[in-house]
Amino acid sequence: MLLENVNSPSDIKRMSVQELKRLADEIRQFLIETISVTGGHFGPNLGVVELTIALHHVFDSPKDKLIWDVGHQAYVHKILTGRKELFPTLRKYKGLSGFPKRKESEHDMFDVGHAATSISAAAGYAMARDLKGEQYHVVAVIGDGAMTGGMAFEAMNHIGHMGTDVIVVLNDNEMSIAPNVGAMSNYLAKLRNHSHYKSVKSEVANLLHKVPSIGDRVAKALERVKDSVKYLMVPGMLFEEIGFTYLGPIDGHNIPLLLEMLEQAKQVKGPVLLHVITKKGKGYAVAEEAPDKFHGVNPFNIETGQAPKVVAKAPQYSNVFGDTLRTLAKEDERIVAITAAMPSGTGLSKFAVEFPDRFFDVGIAEQHAATFAAGLACAGMRPVFAVYSTFLQRAYDQVIHDICIQNLPVVFAIDRAGLVGADGETHQGVFDISFLRAVPNMTIMMPKDENELRHMIYTALQQPGPVAVRYPRGEGRGVSMDEAFRTIPIGKAEILREGNDPVAILALGPGMIELSERAIDLLAAEGIRPMLVNMRFVKPLDSELLLEIAARGYRIVTVEEAVVSGGMGGAILEFYAQNGIHGIDLCPIGLPDRFIEHGSVNQLLESVGVTAERIVEEVKMITPRKRQRA
Amino acid sequence: MLLENVNSPSDIKRMSVQELKRLADEIRQFLIETISVTGGHFGPNLGVVELTIALHHVFDSPKDKLIWDVGHQAYVHKILTGRKELFPTLRKYKGLSGFPKRKESEHDMFDVGHAATSISAAAGYAMARDLKGEQYHVVAVIGDGAMTGGMAFEAMNHIGHMGTDVIVVLNDNEMSIAPNVGAMSNYLAKLRNHSHYKSVKSEVANLLHKVPSIGDRVAKALERVKDSVKYLMVPGMLFEEIGFTYLGPIDGHNIPLLLEMLEQAKQVKGPVLLHVITKKGKGYAVAEEAPDKFHGVNPFNIETGQAPKVVAKAPQYSNVFGDTLRTLAKEDERIVAITAAMPSGTGLSKFAVEFPDRFFDVGIAEQHAATFAAGLACAGMRPVFAVYSTFLQRAYDQVIHDICIQNLPVVFAIDRAGLVGADGETHQGVFDISFLRAVPNMTIMMPKDENELRHMIYTALQQPGPVAVRYPRGEGRGVSMDEAFRTIPIGKAEILREGNDPVAILALGPGMIELSERAIDLLAAEGIRPMLVNMRFVKPLDSELLLEIAARGYRIVTVEEAVVSGGMGGAILEFYAQNGIHGIDLCPIGLPDRFIEHGSVNQLLESVGVTAERIVEEVKMITPRKRQRA
Repeated sequence: MLLENVNSPSDIKRMSVQELKRLADEIRQFLIETISVTGGHFGPNLGVVELTIALHHVFDSPKDKLIWDVGHQAYVHKILTGRKELFPTLRKYKGLSGFPKRKESEHDMFDVGHAATSISAAAGYAMARDLKGEQYHVVAVIGDGAMTGGMAFEAMNHIGHMGTDVIVVLNDNEMSIAPNVGAMSNYLAKLRNHSHYKSVKSEVANLLHKVPSIGDRVAKALERVKDSVKYLMVPGMLFEEIGFTYLGPIDGHNIPLLLEMLEQAKQVKGPVLLHVITKKGKGYAVAEEAPDKFHGVNPFNIETGQAPKVVAKAPQYSNVFGDTLRTLAKEDERIVAITAAMPSGTGLSKFAVEFPDRFFDVGIAEQHAATFAAGLACAGMRPVFAVYSTFLQRAYDQVIHDICIQNLPVVFAIDRAGLVGADGETHQGVFDISFLRAVPNMTIMMPKDENELRHMIYTALQQPGPVAVRYPRGEGRGVSMDEAFRTIPIGKAEILREGNDPVAILALGPGMIELSERAIDLLAAEGIRPMLVNMRFVKPLDSELLLEIAARGYRIVTVEEAVVSGGMGGAILEFYAQNGIHGIDLCPIGLPDRFIEHGSVNQLLESVGVTAERIVEEVKMITPRKRQRA
Repeated sequence: MLLENVNSPSDIKRMSVQELKRLADEIRQFLIETISVTGGHFGPNLGVVELTIALHHVFDSPKDKLIWDVGHQAYVHKILTGRKELFPTLRKYKGLSGFPKRKESEHDMFDVGHAATSISAAAGYAMARDLKGEQYHVVAVIGDGAMTGGMAFEAMNHIGHMGTDVIVVLNDNEMSIAPNVGAMSNYLAKLRNHSHYKSVKSEVANLLHKVPSIGDRVAKALERVKDSVKYLMVPGMLFEEIGFTYLGPIDGHNIPLLLEMLEQAKQVKGPVLLHVITKKGKGYAVAEEAPDKFHGVNPFNIETGQAPKVVAKAPQYSNVFGDTLRTLAKEDERIVAITAAMPSGTGLSKFAVEFPDRFFDVGIAEQHAATFAAGLACAGMRPVFAVYSTFLQRAYDQVIHDICIQNLPVVFAIDRAGLVGADGETHQGVFDISFLRAVPNMTIMMPKDENELRHMIYTALQQPGPVAVRYPRGEGRGVSMDEAFRTIPIGKAEILREGNDPVAILALGPGMIELSERAIDLLAAEGIRPMLVNMRFVKPLDSELLLEIAARGYRIVTVEEAVVSGGMGGAILEFYAQNGIHGIDLCPIGLPDRFIEHGSVNQLLESVGVTAERIVEEVKMITPRKRQRA
């Protein structure tokens, strides 16, 4: 086993091509064996085994800077940089992160999780190098999917203009998570089939050789044509036009070719784009055939590729959303659905099949997605943008400037709101309440379960302005589902238990309501019975209920799976303060003011003290005194 | 006068080309006469007189949808759509907006103010049209500056892929506000000089005609070359590659040519990009020569182009920032400055001259700017991203994901924080406190005056993590400036007056401190003396002081020029609640939960009740009772 003795990039420097190939096989085997047990990003990593080996062979990390876009394809990089022993802990609490992390290794140059940032980061490293007069290479590895993010274009536009030495490796596997869309994707497909151009090139050279004796003017024209033709024969014009030297396309699983082309890229002055064609899931047949299914996986059986059948106790929130939207779309032709490269993740796959004309996958382009929705709404449609909470951060200005200022009826179906677990810091959906509730005209709701989610989507589509419906990742609570849709009165909370002690738990969302119910069971044993409210709305708040609770002199415990800073608890405090109601005794339970790493959602909640026990403690803190007074 | 009788687009439909030319002259004269009195966006509008006339002649607004990017070039459109009588009220309180507004006219299709949104909005209109089976044209007019925004690329990528009928008019004046940068800009320059290619084209056709009798294989090759050459000879390959038919470049001041090419664009199936070359400030010599100075103007003398000399009572905050940064950059080579196409607006012009290598104008590309700063910081530099508050909204995910998660020492110099006045809704910098304070690791400060701004910039550059220093638009307070820099203790507020009544005014920023001082003068007449605190920090808060104030049982009045939702007042309420301190009597004064239109800052503050009188009222609401108790 070669892999056994590879603990840092220096260990592969003197390997022969044959050895590197063997190493690639071993790493692939290691990935299959490991990820089939731990779960994790699978297809993307199988696709970049040879590329990563070649990068570490040609470049000198950490002196040279390897910057991974999105970062879910950095497992091979982690293996080669001394972290292979940690793989059993992959994406587990306190274990190895699924993404590059500067704190984890000196070889990780830039923390990441979202797409399209690598070229900007590379530009920063490169300019710093130039200013300091240092000598190193900067390499960004970016997928063709991430290339649809406008930010990647902004960075290329800047680097192309500066002309500094940056190597962009375009890892083209024709996929983001789902198959790619967009004109850029078509363009890349054209480049992939470029061998035709190459033969034309030599034929033209021949031809020009054969007609030497033409009149002067024509000769001059020919000369210019020759230049132009040469220019044309170089594929990748689009990149060349914005200042990059284009190399490729090359087979990303051919190690000697990768070594040769990376060496060549190293020699070129100025920005280079090396176009590398790889196959997602390469070397594991089942994954090659269903690359979207094997993008990220749960533990699975290596022989069959099947994950052990888990009996779902309830449907996923994403699917409940998707099914609801399909049902509603049958009745209302104005409803259209938008995703930014997440048709399956957001539960829209069936919608896409059933309403192909009314389904828009715009690529990894949240900004455009939001403003595109605004345009659709202006023209009388009812657009629903389904997006993970963390990715909505990309479209914040568009939410404000293009949707809320005009008060347009765009529905945001905010999936993965709250903690998401194994993906960690970069993916937690914990800021949306704070950043959305600051924006005028926005309505923000969150259901207590999957049944209420249906009614909320229905309700949202009836509103005259923007509505955000946020819901968590994963399975519902297994409640029974109503047949008919019901309109939920805007800004009306639901009292789940009246209680008979002067304390109210105001909870938002399924997870927090579940915690609160557990707390109530614990409290019941002590004879304490607080009120429990399903808040439903962060904006507008249920002012009537809040006034009533205040009038009764209740202590309030708010519970939300989002940062406390600017969250629902804060909104309620502001409400009372603005209404001149003072002396409110409110404890805001929620996420603390720090980034929360990866782990299971329960472990993470425990680690930050958002637990049933904490709710119990906070409820009890007031009750005895108040009870005495009562 | 033709203009007199033009009250809607239909009034120009039957005009001859000669009449349209005369109309253009009259409109230009009208713009010069009007804007020299009111102030407003000048150069951009002079540049699009002919283009706008041609658009309204060829297209049928409001059936056809004309969508203006940024919108500061829509004055001619407003003149032609029945609003010329309103120009004396331009950008004044309750007057004509400086940007398109759907509420203002049925001819305004999309509210705007920020760059690069028009193609996305056009995509929305176009897809809605297709789905509904309606027939109309959708035209986005976008400048070459806005084209550097990644969002424009995202939209083109989507439209190019969908292949629907959208006309993008690229209004290429080689400028955004400042001269454009970026590889795209170089590319456009190349296109502008494309006449050379045109002659090659005909020569090649000739050549191919002259050599008819060559062997079969070569002939075939030649045929392919002919295709390729033809392809090449069409300029605008970059646009063609992503699915647009490229037309142009054409002279944007030639009315007959514009009419012809717009008619042609109308006929093309699928997406079209029409490249129009215009001159900013066209027809007014002074503005043609200094287009950045005449982008937006105050009232000026038509003869000389000079604005009446106003004796500045104090330097602008932008300039104080710029000067401070220059001084600090002399001592610390790690300091670099970044702007997104606003070198002059952010006060960095002199820095750019003095430190050309350490100054980066990345184009209208806030996302890239932020992550580029992150990369620079990773590589040991001290980047300062100077950006208007409203435009920082564009980089929110980058602030979270690329800077704060890694706790990188990036300084955000947030200019135009608070109300900005005449630009209105789209430009008010009122959300930054709410959206930034939710993010872990971020420090947020705001000085009480221009002198403290210097110390804050100095202090920010010494911190190990991200710092936002926000300051208002316009002139300082005229205070004397310290010679030496001073470090301001992080999270320490400054007590400006101790007072002797049990009430504290906690104010943030120059404007709000000024209001509070005025309130204190009014209160003094009644013998009431509240404490006055210059908060300085929104995050971290001065916990010691807040605890002290609470211990004393003071009423608190917070005053900030930002939305109350999630603002500083809310942060203080959360602080007390999280520390188990209840019964705090706090009144948060700030901006209400609605978008605030254009007008002078004072008018706007008055209109939303953020006034000295309001502070007086809130202070008095508690004082008598508390005083009795004291």
